Amino acid sequence: MTEPDWLDDHERAAWVRLAAILELLPGVLDSQLRRESGLTHFDYYALAMLSESPERTLRMTALAAQTHATLPRLSHVVKRLEDRGLVTRFPCPEDARATNVRLSEEGWRTVRAAAPGHVATVRHHVVDVLTPEQVDQLTAIGSALLARLDPEGAMAEVYRRYDP
Amino acid sequence: MTEPDWLDDHERAAWVRLAAILELLPGVLDSQLRRESGLTHFDYYALAMLSESPERTLRMTALAAQTHATLPRLSHVVKRLEDRGLVTRFPCPEDARATNVRLSEEGWRTVRAAAPGHVATVRHHVVDVLTPEQVDQLTAIGSALLARLDPEGAMAEVYRRYDP
Repeated sequence: MTEPDWLDDHERAAWVRLAAILELLPGVLDSQLRRESGLTHFDYYALAMLSESPERTLRMTALAAQTHATLPRLSHVVKRLEDRGLVTRFPCPEDARATNVRLSEEGWRTVRAAAPGHVATVRHHVVDVLTPEQVDQLTAIGSALLARLDPEGAMAEVYRRYDP
Repeated sequence: MTEPDWLDDHERAAWVRLAAILELLPGVLDSQLRRESGLTHFDYYALAMLSESPERTLRMTALAAQTHATLPRLSHVVKRLEDRGLVTRFPCPEDARATNVRLSEEGWRTVRAAAPGHVATVRHHVVDVLTPEQVDQLTAIGSALLARLDPEGAMAEVYRRYDP
């Protein structure tokens, strides 16, 4: 056994901060959305992905990829959103084995009403505390990490959609 | 009502990447530690904080602050770690109303044995994909976000401990 390649002080300073953000930021995003819109951050993200898709419809497998969720986890969430009338599920016309999910009118109103408060939270805790240079640095750092975290590029289509 | 201050393309490119990292990285850290050491990332982090404290002991309130956890959540985790013989709890000698938690010998061996695999995961997914300049950029970006996310500076003592 060789000695582990411990982090140096610079690396550790970066890592403890990223670990703290992983611990704190999801709770902040979730609690604002729950309080003001009755949605988790994951619910919001799934509804937003549907709202930006042609005919506000995606195959379940595509929505799973875009939200980084397993199909069982996504099915559970979609069932709950369907019970609230925010989405509907139906067999894919082009492939009878596949299921599509579509945003309802009520879902569209819900995600539109939730967006301003969510964006304000993202601004307050992330975007507005960074300089324009740091915003672009974060994009490059994020791309480097995601090349390892998402090696099959399931999210690549989503990133491209938002790239400047 | 004024129009929300939507993210521009640069800001959105950074945000979708950070949101994807929040979704993917915790699962990667958790599954490596669970598989190789039977610990969650939170368990590991709490044991590591104790291992670096004087006499490997902290008040529960101090450990809660250093791990960004609420006291009820931390109590639940510490009870589980105590049942496994990794920590012990006892009344604080200086303040009878407070509880201390101490890493046991078995806890010390467990966290030492878990560290190399965890560090290798952090290197593979984060540190080794960044240039030295990006590592320092991530520290500055992280500090800016945490000034909002951790305004009372509960973690500040931990960051200082690791700063270059």
